[in-house]
Amino acid sequence: MLSSKRRYDIDSLTDVALRVFARKGYDGASMDDVATEAGITKASIYHHARGKEALLARGLGRALDALEAILTERDATAGGAAERVRYVVRRVAETTTRHLAEVTVLFRVRGNSETERNALERRRRFDRKVAELVAAAQKDGALRDDLDPGLVTRLTFGMSNSVVEWYRAGGSIDESSLTKAILALIFDGLSRA
Amino acid sequence: MLSSKRRYDIDSLTDVALRVFARKGYDGASMDDVATEAGITKASIYHHARGKEALLARGLGRALDALEAILTERDATAGGAAERVRYVVRRVAETTTRHLAEVTVLFRVRGNSETERNALERRRRFDRKVAELVAAAQKDGALRDDLDPGLVTRLTFGMSNSVVEWYRAGGSIDESSLTKAILALIFDGLSRA
Repeated sequence: MLSSKRRYDIDSLTDVALRVFARKGYDGASMDDVATEAGITKASIYHHARGKEALLARGLGRALDALEAILTERDATAGGAAERVRYVVRRVAETTTRHLAEVTVLFRVRGNSETERNALERRRRFDRKVAELVAAAQKDGALRDDLDPGLVTRLTFGMSNSVVEWYRAGGSIDESSLTKAILALIFDGLSRA
Repeated sequence: MLSSKRRYDIDSLTDVALRVFARKGYDGASMDDVATEAGITKASIYHHARGKEALLARGLGRALDALEAILTERDATAGGAAERVRYVVRRVAETTTRHLAEVTVLFRVRGNSETERNALERRRRFDRKVAELVAAAQKDGALRDDLDPGLVTRLTFGMSNSVVEWYRAGGSIDESSLTKAILALIFDGLSRA
């Protein structure tokens, strides 16, 4: 569908590659698939990117940059620990819906290459910082303290990460209902008070 | 490590294939990988199974049989709707940890083949039945009714499915702590009452 005159740079090519990786899985996707999706030749792609792993590295970097930026935002660094946890959970959910292709690819990474292992290590560092925030809120008495903070963090992000499997912009559930439901379940639960 | 005299049947070969699929991803795994893991030749595998997709179909069938069986258990069919929802969530979490390779492969299926599409359809049917149970509990007034029952179901299973990414039998978190934490978050939430 795209004109053969379409011009790409490394960023717009990364967008295309992420869509292909998210749809077919990184292992199942080839540079031919990326070229077909972009509507250009494989040679043109190699003009911009060294290869499939370079496109993956760039996509993963974007997802991780977006997630890590959350922890530097004002509401994540000031105020009570419980409110900071709630803010981070909300922003992670929003970042997931707004950078859907990037985070879809990130959440599926299993450490099959140096690029994937580096991404996993950055994710672990992010999760550890959030777990520390949960622990601080438990110590404050603002969050229940009978659950391991690392486990709480894993399960919470497990829930919000899972939306990449079905959430689509413009679909039947919008970002704000989704974020509200995640916060309601994680912080208040389903049982009637 | 395995003796070359090791004898397999279709079930024990499916076990091996599921381990390989869970580790490398189905698309990234080859019949050579399965043969290597089994310590037998590829020809011996084809004696038992028509191919990689037949092994996948058998593994997915196991996971879906185990999940569907939950809905026929006594505590899922009798009693108040809210207690039945809680029972199903607990049993799904247990089934996930007890059939880890099967459900890992199931949860990663994206509909790339007829086998995968059939599995997705069975999963959707399962999710719909649970969503109906959630809706009944909301109608009873036993669960909060300000959240869409389908969304609640997706997010709940999103959380419990996510444990396949890190849970290992004999690891630092045991099945009972894990199940307790999932139920605590979903039903009661993290905030202090």
